[in-house]
Amino acid sequence: MLLEPGPVVLVSTADGGKNNVMTISWHMVMDFTPRFAILTGAWNHSYKALIKSRECVIAIPTVDISRKVVEIGACSGSDTDKFECFGLTPIKAKWVKAPLIGECIANIECRVSDHIKKHDIFVLDAIQAWVDDDRKERRTIHARGDGTFIVDGRAINYRELMLSKIPSGV
Amino acid sequence: MLLEPGPVVLVSTADGGKNNVMTISWHMVMDFTPRFAILTGAWNHSYKALIKSRECVIAIPTVDISRKVVEIGACSGSDTDKFECFGLTPIKAKWVKAPLIGECIANIECRVSDHIKKHDIFVLDAIQAWVDDDRKERRTIHARGDGTFIVDGRAINYRELMLSKIPSGV
Repeated sequence: MLLEPGPVVLVSTADGGKNNVMTISWHMVMDFTPRFAILTGAWNHSYKALIKSRECVIAIPTVDISRKVVEIGACSGSDTDKFECFGLTPIKAKWVKAPLIGECIANIECRVSDHIKKHDIFVLDAIQAWVDDDRKERRTIHARGDGTFIVDGRAINYRELMLSKIPSGV
Repeated sequence: MLLEPGPVVLVSTADGGKNNVMTISWHMVMDFTPRFAILTGAWNHSYKALIKSRECVIAIPTVDISRKVVEIGACSGSDTDKFECFGLTPIKAKWVKAPLIGECIANIECRVSDHIKKHDIFVLDAIQAWVDDDRKERRTIHARGDGTFIVDGRAINYRELMLSKIPSGV
């Protein structure tokens, strides 16, 4: 639900108590179950924490903090405390050591269930999702890969056409 | 570029001359190289054609044909000639047997470079992209997974913040 439209997301990790966060848009939903895939690599400081801790939080930012999200992606946790530098509020998660991000509309606590080394695809199982229902700004952003981003526009409802494809309860 | 924002896409396949098309939103860009991943499974009629031919076309529809795109996803190629049923125009591709779809803003000819059986992830290499530059309607749609879709809104340009991350030429 939260991730299927492919917004830019933040991934927070904790490695021996040190929190870090990265910006990615290379992820996909894998099923109607809460399982999805992200792709990162050894060039990324969060990569080691992801492999070592096998946990992370996927946090979904909205357009009001989009500039900050891009800046987070343009620097490295190797020389920057990103939570402090960007004024992000780390909130204690329920099941994982990586922190939730207070400024995001949704946070998903995840465990790494598989690491496909050949392609550096990480398969994540969501174990707990938190959504800020009171937030007014709900529009996410989508990377076009060239430094420009598309903001969510209007919604269309085609539920009646898809009833046979949507599991009950969704 | 074309796929990074996570729009709903059509995947066309050819299996022994019979064209088929499916609707998916489970895909991700894998790198700045033209490589990406899609996820489907044996429940899908196109799955066999994808495995047998190791080729497909990823076609990117825009909001003006969004109802048709959803209807394509709600029926099966096992009992429907989707190109005929939905009035899609198959155009001969340059490198693969699967057809381009004339009604889409962009078409990407792909070869399957890997099939990760455990998760049914197909890794695709793009070998040729076609973009309809003259088309007025350019807004893509994003599935929210519950039968509703978000249409592209406005664009934001953060290129100046990302110069260190964007390969030259992009």
